[in-house]
Amino acid sequence: MGITLSDLATRLGVQIRGRSDVEVSRIGTLAGSDSSCLTFLGDARHRRHLGQTRAGAVVLAERDADAAPVPALISENPYLTFALAARILHPEPPVTGGVHPSAVVDSAARVDPTAWIGPQAVVEAGAWIGPRVFVGPGSIVGANVRIGEDSRLVARVTLCDGTVVGKRALLHPGAVIGRDGFGFARDGECWVRMPQVGRARLGDDVEIGANTSVDRGAIEDTVIGDGVKLDNHIQIGHNVQIGENTAMAANTGISGSTRIGRNCTIAGATGVAGHLEIGDNVHFSGMAMVTRSFIEPGYYSSGIPAMANSEWRRNVVRFRHLDDMARRLKRLGERVDQLARRQGGEDD
Amino acid sequence: MGITLSDLATRLGVQIRGRSDVEVSRIGTLAGSDSSCLTFLGDARHRRHLGQTRAGAVVLAERDADAAPVPALISENPYLTFALAARILHPEPPVTGGVHPSAVVDSAARVDPTAWIGPQAVVEAGAWIGPRVFVGPGSIVGANVRIGEDSRLVARVTLCDGTVVGKRALLHPGAVIGRDGFGFARDGECWVRMPQVGRARLGDDVEIGANTSVDRGAIEDTVIGDGVKLDNHIQIGHNVQIGENTAMAANTGISGSTRIGRNCTIAGATGVAGHLEIGDNVHFSGMAMVTRSFIEPGYYSSGIPAMANSEWRRNVVRFRHLDDMARRLKRLGERVDQLARRQGGEDD
Amino acid sequence: MGITLSDLATRLGVQIRGRSDVEVSRIGTLAGSDSSCLTFLGDARHRRHLGQTRAGAVVLAERDADAAPVPALISENPYLTFALAARILHPEPPVTGGVHPSAVVDSAARVDPTAWIGPQAVVEAGAWIGPRVFVGPGSIVGANVRIGEDSRLVARVTLCDGTVVGKRALLHPGAVIGRDGFGFARDGECWVRMPQVGRARLGDDVEIGANTSVDRGAIEDTVIGDGVKLDNHIQIGHNVQIGENTAMAANTGISGSTRIGRNCTIAGATGVAGHLEIGDNVHFSGMAMVTRSFIEPGYYSSGIPAMANSEWRRNVVRFRHLDDMARRLKRLGERVDQLARRQGGEDD
Repeated sequence: MGITLSDLATRLGVQIRGRSDVEVSRIGTLAGSDSSCLTFLGDARHRRHLGQTRAGAVVLAERDADAAPVPALISENPYLTFALAARILHPEPPVTGGVHPSAVVDSAARVDPTAWIGPQAVVEAGAWIGPRVFVGPGSIVGANVRIGEDSRLVARVTLCDGTVVGKRALLHPGAVIGRDGFGFARDGECWVRMPQVGRARLGDDVEIGANTSVDRGAIEDTVIGDGVKLDNHIQIGHNVQIGENTAMAANTGISGSTRIGRNCTIAGATGVAGHLEIGDNVHFSGMAMVTRSFIEPGYYSSGIPAMANSEWRRNVVRFRHLDDMARRLKRLGERVDQLARRQGGEDD
Repeated sequence: MGITLSDLATRLGVQIRGRSDVEVSRIGTLAGSDSSCLTFLGDARHRRHLGQTRAGAVVLAERDADAAPVPALISENPYLTFALAARILHPEPPVTGGVHPSAVVDSAARVDPTAWIGPQAVVEAGAWIGPRVFVGPGSIVGANVRIGEDSRLVARVTLCDGTVVGKRALLHPGAVIGRDGFGFARDGECWVRMPQVGRARLGDDVEIGANTSVDRGAIEDTVIGDGVKLDNHIQIGHNVQIGENTAMAANTGISGSTRIGRNCTIAGATGVAGHLEIGDNVHFSGMAMVTRSFIEPGYYSSGIPAMANSEWRRNVVRFRHLDDMARRLKRLGERVDQLARRQGGEDD
Repeated sequence: MGITLSDLATRLGVQIRGRSDVEVSRIGTLAGSDSSCLTFLGDARHRRHLGQTRAGAVVLAERDADAAPVPALISENPYLTFALAARILHPEPPVTGGVHPSAVVDSAARVDPTAWIGPQAVVEAGAWIGPRVFVGPGSIVGANVRIGEDSRLVARVTLCDGTVVGKRALLHPGAVIGRDGFGFARDGECWVRMPQVGRARLGDDVEIGANTSVDRGAIEDTVIGDGVKLDNHIQIGHNVQIGENTAMAANTGISGSTRIGRNCTIAGATGVAGHLEIGDNVHFSGMAMVTRSFIEPGYYSSGIPAMANSEWRRNVVRFRHLDDMARRLKRLGERVDQLARRQGGEDD
């Protein structure tokens, strides 16, 4: 089931350096490949592995081509070309339409005949499941949910009632989309639940990681834009809006009613407070603590990186006196100014 | 299916300003409502939207009534009144008793005839499921679990054996209650699992968010008090006790054997270490790092808010020298004192 | 169903102090036990409860034996002995082989006759399930998964296709093993998914907590070593390698391609960036922010512990001026040096 380098090059629109009749059937690393593998050199740090590679072929940039000991595909963006090649070598299996006998599909649901409803899945009344959608085992598609064509619920995904999923979505196990957001009014010491009547709406080409949650809106919708990619264990609060192609790494949380722009990247375990505005092309580093709006594009960070515990202990106790230190420093500056003036003719 | 303002006012015990025969059928925002909607003005920041609202009616405080362009319900706590009205306009559908044919209910389980066991659910031996309980699709009710009346397992909730759930609980998809806590004894380099024989016990009116976990106790029980509200992705370790009406936002973790008082609020992504005591009415801001007990009521915080990456880099390297800075500052103060004494007559 | 102290002592290889015919049937705390309980004194902080205990027997160290009011088992490691005794008193119920009628097992899967496949479970083609494995209700065992003997999927565990689980694993509800890792190539503003063709491989005696995720490798495998214990809500990115007997507490995240050594302990809510190397016997305290490699054994920490909000506000604003403060302190030191030189004969 291999494919020749010349076929790959044609489909990817790139040039070949070396023999074009080499056949590859899977992807591999520079160091771990055999002759059936296509590998790649993206990062200059790995260039030392290039000379020893036993891969059948390699994707790399023009500047590295002379050092390649095997046939090469030349690309200005080797990682992208490699990803596209990998999708050809390792295609998603096509979806076979049908409903597994153990699945429960409500008679008032509409399932496209080309869609697959897997074992132990549940599809409730009023749901609409589009062409070639894959509803994996144990998934729950609530009432009036819509799932656009070619979307894939890997397994055990929960879509609460009214959720809208666009085309080509990839939803991983444990994802929960559209649960009631966390909204309460206070009645004395008690909390009174505020009904959440908005929906969760996912655009096209959205990916939602394992055990990630996207809450439905309180009144209007929670909106996840086209091309948004969310890693595992992410919390998206109610009424949040996320712009196109923004990506977030695992364990991040976005509190309710915050709006995030397009093309942002948010590294792991970041926390964003509620009711904020984050502009386009804003990037947060890992564990950032975001307590105000950031409109301007740029890179933002916070936190204290880990150090030896003894060193940390010594320094962290001083943090509580930082304001006092700043005041003392200022006063000391003034005293030194005064001393200098009295002494006369300082700062030569 | 609308309701007149006069009916609403009667049921909520509030006054009407303007026409009382207006009919509303759903809730809406100030800016997004049409004449079928009831809206509200809570926060003064939104007052500018009041004049333009096209809602059928609005809930607001007496002081804002004159500015309302539509009939109004007058309340000292508009958000609470609005929430109560919303619960009338958007009622939870009543539970129809029965067991879906695809559900698996052990013959040694007792299910009240008014309870619903949904598709693909599992109810194991010895479980007791009370009146009007809703066990949503794919939920697992372990052996000897008890679920009090009117509780709702939305979908795919897991209650491990022996778990006790009070009345009117709301448990969201992916919640895991009563798994064995994380307890091990060390045997050389190996870990020996300590059996966890306590239970997880939830009071009445408890809410547990999506993909949130409450571990069972090691020997005695993990106890979640009445009215506690937990958002998504929260970890409650074994033996934790949480007092009544305490609320926690998403991604927070409470380590084993910590006790938390009543009426606390814990913002998102907070981490609380184990074996601590947190008093009543203690409030932590988001991402707080709680490493000691806090008995006194109050507001507590930690963390460094995000800033431009260049600014952060410049400052964060200094943190490692904070202790050194403090010592140098002190010594410098002493030297300036000495210089001043020698110079004579400073600090006029 | 009790067991005599003499039987316990024989099986555990420890000495008895006091009557050996006492019978115990369950474990209890020092303060909460009755005569049917075995309890223990590990931590000196609890010694004050020893005199009042009503337990049937107690496990403790030689030095505490004289203070025990009840028969005792003497151990150099009382907690370990207690854990081993607890495993005798509260044994895991033996697995009865079979397949629940509601389970869906593909005809091309091989299930050992001594293994149990629970209600609503799914076992896909090519899976191999070893002797005495317990596949709990609602679990999903993907295509070509291997599960070693005596492993236990408590309930609703998802093993994505190709995942390998060793012997005696304990996998808690909501765990997701082997989902596609978070890997994309950038194509202009769009993200192109990189196929993830590695597997997730778990060694023997591994434990995976509730709602914890272990992603499959991008090209090679994600590897969890023998004896690794992961608490709830942990994210393990693709290509991560974790050495034997390393333990992690809840809410921690390990980013892709990081390697972690043996016998490490990582406290809760720690975040470890990608492509790092963490050595053996490295210990991180809770909420540590790990942005560089730590090869040397030791204890590492970061973060600012919570304090009163007013105090925090006062100090945290100064953090943004820390670099400026350090510069001013340095300059001030130089000026004081200069003043002192001019004044002559300082620093006696």
